[in-house]
Amino acid sequence: MRLSDRITHINGGGSDGWGVFYRARAMKAAGTNVTELTIGEHDIPTSPDILTAMHRAALAGHTGYASVPGIPALRDAVAARVQARTGVSTTRDNVLITAGGQAALFAAHHAVCDPGDRALFMDPYYATYPGTIRANGAVPVPVLTAPADGFQPRAEAIAALASRARSLLINSPNNPTGVVYSDDTLAGIARVVQDHDMWLISDEVYDTQVWHGSHLSPRALPGMAERTLVVGSMSKSHAMTGSRLGWIIGPQPAIAHLIDLATNTNYGVPGYIQDAGLFALNQGPATEEGIAAPFRRRRALALDILSRQNILHAVPPEGAMYLMLDIRPTGLSGEDFAYRLLDAHHIAVMPGESFGQAAAGHIRIAMTIPDAPFAAALEQLVAFATELTIPA
Amino acid sequence: MRLSDRITHINGGGSDGWGVFYRARAMKAAGTNVTELTIGEHDIPTSPDILTAMHRAALAGHTGYASVPGIPALRDAVAARVQARTGVSTTRDNVLITAGGQAALFAAHHAVCDPGDRALFMDPYYATYPGTIRANGAVPVPVLTAPADGFQPRAEAIAALASRARSLLINSPNNPTGVVYSDDTLAGIARVVQDHDMWLISDEVYDTQVWHGSHLSPRALPGMAERTLVVGSMSKSHAMTGSRLGWIIGPQPAIAHLIDLATNTNYGVPGYIQDAGLFALNQGPATEEGIAAPFRRRRALALDILSRQNILHAVPPEGAMYLMLDIRPTGLSGEDFAYRLLDAHHIAVMPGESFGQAAAGHIRIAMTIPDAPFAAALEQLVAFATELTIPA
Repeated sequence: MRLSDRITHINGGGSDGWGVFYRARAMKAAGTNVTELTIGEHDIPTSPDILTAMHRAALAGHTGYASVPGIPALRDAVAARVQARTGVSTTRDNVLITAGGQAALFAAHHAVCDPGDRALFMDPYYATYPGTIRANGAVPVPVLTAPADGFQPRAEAIAALASRARSLLINSPNNPTGVVYSDDTLAGIARVVQDHDMWLISDEVYDTQVWHGSHLSPRALPGMAERTLVVGSMSKSHAMTGSRLGWIIGPQPAIAHLIDLATNTNYGVPGYIQDAGLFALNQGPATEEGIAAPFRRRRALALDILSRQNILHAVPPEGAMYLMLDIRPTGLSGEDFAYRLLDAHHIAVMPGESFGQAAAGHIRIAMTIPDAPFAAALEQLVAFATELTIPA
Repeated sequence: MRLSDRITHINGGGSDGWGVFYRARAMKAAGTNVTELTIGEHDIPTSPDILTAMHRAALAGHTGYASVPGIPALRDAVAARVQARTGVSTTRDNVLITAGGQAALFAAHHAVCDPGDRALFMDPYYATYPGTIRANGAVPVPVLTAPADGFQPRAEAIAALASRARSLLINSPNNPTGVVYSDDTLAGIARVVQDHDMWLISDEVYDTQVWHGSHLSPRALPGMAERTLVVGSMSKSHAMTGSRLGWIIGPQPAIAHLIDLATNTNYGVPGYIQDAGLFALNQGPATEEGIAAPFRRRRALALDILSRQNILHAVPPEGAMYLMLDIRPTGLSGEDFAYRLLDAHHIAVMPGESFGQAAAGHIRIAMTIPDAPFAAALEQLVAFATELTIPA
């Protein structure tokens, strides 16, 4: 039986570049002790305090259909949080609670792209971006960044592809590069999207993980609040990945239509999960800093290890839970390097090629295992790269 | 800023027919004691046993990203349940776990309809059906049923609209009518969808609430497993509406593509909710009969009350948690009757017009309040209809 063209083309054909990841998982399933530095997920579970708040809410009877846009108290709390962090006036009418950041990415593109519309996104990119655009029947158009620019987008590169585009998707702090977009970068982006009357979709799910400089939400730039949809989530900030709790911030008319969409996609998010999210947000910044602390620590460990060699250069790790290394001095592609590292030392990292074209010759290291094995794996990786580069 | 045509047309324009519902909610918010017989939601919360199983799973660490297609144990349990209830061979590869039945309805239409395709559905219908089709960019085409047929669909009526249609959505046991489709009806539907090479999307979320006759899943009919997507849910069977836990059953190639869609829409369903669902399914049929029992009881109460008058005739309530009454003898539309009942007696019911054209002149009564006030409200409603019909 024939399926829709749209659903059968979500994956875009060809390899998804995740072969190393799958091989690592298969080795692990077969009993090999693999050190996985692949996935962007904390090495701690969700805090028992948050889970207890959830259970309390559920036992108290918050188990029926929850308000589709989100419970008012959570919408208010998210609005207040966003306003406090960005200075942009924000009320509950600017907030839709979603089933995680991914549901927000899907809904945001649904809201601004019709079938056949061009939707831009920066390369390298988080794995689901092109599929999310194709699942909406739109045409994903990657805009390449360059290692020489520290993976900061250039406004000209966006402008060159902006004709007939409806939207641009950006992500800062960035997965996979760990780069935080500079104020200049964001000003350039704001200019281009205004010049071309485009929507900006700003994925800010790593906004509590900034190690250097500061995170600027482009919604705060002049003229941008009316054309920006911000994607947020509790996944990274509160180690709640599995709870699927996120949001979209946007102009009220866009949110009103996004509520219609939510009625017809998920019919809301579990009320007791929203109560748990509200509890978590109310714990304040110290909790969030505690969740971010291990990545801050491991980043420092990594920079120290890397400072003792001169072969592998890191993309400056300014935010998020990743470290991107330029492995071109080894003469290998990111994919070849990753496969060889996996086979030789049972260490799994993501090839840059898993995230598009722009990060070829790089690898992404998720700083998501405890400090000691993380440092040991990185030292082994550096030694391996050194052997490859300087034959004995 | 311009939004997509698709999202701005989800609601299709015009009144949504839910004015009575909103007025009742407003009266309640203003302090009036309104008896609400409107929404299809149990008057009990989710069982503490299920919530405790959920909490146990969460505390045990099932708080990270869950497998996107669903955890294997739940996919297996759902497959075994479907196979046991229908006799159709079903494995985990035929199952995608979704964020409730609504997410399953959305995904099923995404999988089979491209933008502009015609998608049929039976009228009267559950409120989200046309919006779900429009949210996918497809064109909703209602197929009218008739009170004189007991709201059983006629194959000829479907065939007359089937040209260039990709799918037909049915729902048995039916919301809003309470009708269970007969074997003859389903055989006719199966013939039409095969003749026109269409997909059948079969919403069976009320399949544990059958009061008369028996529920036949059309996937079990010859030649139908390959062209049927079944929508299921824990909402009605286990009073888990707010937990948003459901599934799609379908041919393996369709499920494989639906997993790609799930990756790009929700990125899975919370693992601890899936664990709770698995626990609930494992409690066996007595638990489900316990959840269904109040509706069975209230249906009997209602039939007894109605047997003592001769003005209002019920559509035979064979399944689901609703009672549909033909109020045409009062000379009013369903909407006028509902508004007048609300204003005069503070009893809120849904006009048939809220569910399309075919149930005009009817009202839907949700049997979702405790027995004594339910019986009292129905008696008051009957007396009100009698006054309207036989002026003193």
